[in-house]
Amino acid sequence: MTESPDEDYRRAAVDLLGAIAYGELSAFERLVEDAKMAPGIEDKIAIGAMATAEFGHLQKLVERLSELGADPAEAMQVFRPSFDSFHAYTAPSDYYEGLIKAYVGDGLAADFYREIAAYLDPETREVIISSLEDSGQTAFIVDRVKAGIAEDHRLGGRLALWGRRLMGEALTQAQRVAGDRESLTALLAGGVDRPGLDLAALGRMFTRLTERHAARMAELGLEA
Amino acid sequence: MTESPDEDYRRAAVDLLGAIAYGELSAFERLVEDAKMAPGIEDKIAIGAMATAEFGHLQKLVERLSELGADPAEAMQVFRPSFDSFHAYTAPSDYYEGLIKAYVGDGLAADFYREIAAYLDPETREVIISSLEDSGQTAFIVDRVKAGIAEDHRLGGRLALWGRRLMGEALTQAQRVAGDRESLTALLAGGVDRPGLDLAALGRMFTRLTERHAARMAELGLEA
Repeated sequence: MTESPDEDYRRAAVDLLGAIAYGELSAFERLVEDAKMAPGIEDKIAIGAMATAEFGHLQKLVERLSELGADPAEAMQVFRPSFDSFHAYTAPSDYYEGLIKAYVGDGLAADFYREIAAYLDPETREVIISSLEDSGQTAFIVDRVKAGIAEDHRLGGRLALWGRRLMGEALTQAQRVAGDRESLTALLAGGVDRPGLDLAALGRMFTRLTERHAARMAELGLEA
Repeated sequence: MTESPDEDYRRAAVDLLGAIAYGELSAFERLVEDAKMAPGIEDKIAIGAMATAEFGHLQKLVERLSELGADPAEAMQVFRPSFDSFHAYTAPSDYYEGLIKAYVGDGLAADFYREIAAYLDPETREVIISSLEDSGQTAFIVDRVKAGIAEDHRLGGRLALWGRRLMGEALTQAQRVAGDRESLTALLAGGVDRPGLDLAALGRMFTRLTERHAARMAELGLEA
């Protein structure tokens, strides 16, 4: 059975939207879970606000999936094992690790999706970009982490290692997903009428992602 | 040290707002936690929407606490032990028990707060009433529970008992809170320039709460 290029493209768009949507749903659940370690009610409220902003992005992704003729829950389900094992391998052992994970993990995911969204149709791209908008709560995380390190300098070293581990796990899972889903590989490779990424371009994308990760770590006062 | 009636009143209003705010924060956390037992992604999304609606109500309560000169986190902290032990005693053992708890528990709490809000100034009352608005997701719960009982009739008996237990635990905690917080007892008793509840009125309030609880159980197809 051969399929039209259009059908290939639709599949890739559905895959990408499904991955982002499940990623946001699971980030929502983990944030609320990690907020249990928050020292006080003020922090619980701040993290709850981040989590609900994350959840608020879901609706548009789900709508776009329906517009593309997909069953949103099915499109998301495919990516559940990858995200669930990412979260299982990166369960924070204290409140600070949870904050770093929210800041660095969500930032990295957002950068990656934005890069890939460039290869999609304008409507889907718009839905994705707006779903990745910063919920404006990151200042809270930066403050809390800096205050924690100021109080206990050893914390800085531990959190720097933690940030590196998060980056490593995220890349492992991203590679696995890309390898498993032919549609996404095909999307990035391009087609007759669509530009793709050659190896050099892929390398530059990776460099950009690493640089932005380092910038986020620096913002927290941590070495990448 | 004697305090003006105004100060007594302010304390009662702060207590009530603090209790509702912490109640909503903890309901938000428990809903997301219980959504882990959801059978599929569709249900997770529906429960996430309920939880974020619950969280959305917090903001106005926190603002009103600040307007009344209170530290919102402190006002909420006071009620943490009561709500936390309510949740510890009523941890759902499956997805259906979680749904019933969300529906019956939140409904009962909302009815109770609405009754008490009648004894407050119009501004505070308005904030409380609007914070208790139904998030419009209860149809989802009713559907799910009815479908579950249609599939397995024994479920109905178990959930009816569960509903009774929730009601009992809620009353135990409410009594403990009222007993611990003199300001709330004083508010309900009334004052020179404020009407209060006599024993007969308290009895009628209790009857109304029980009737509404029974109506909610009936809605789910369960005996109260």
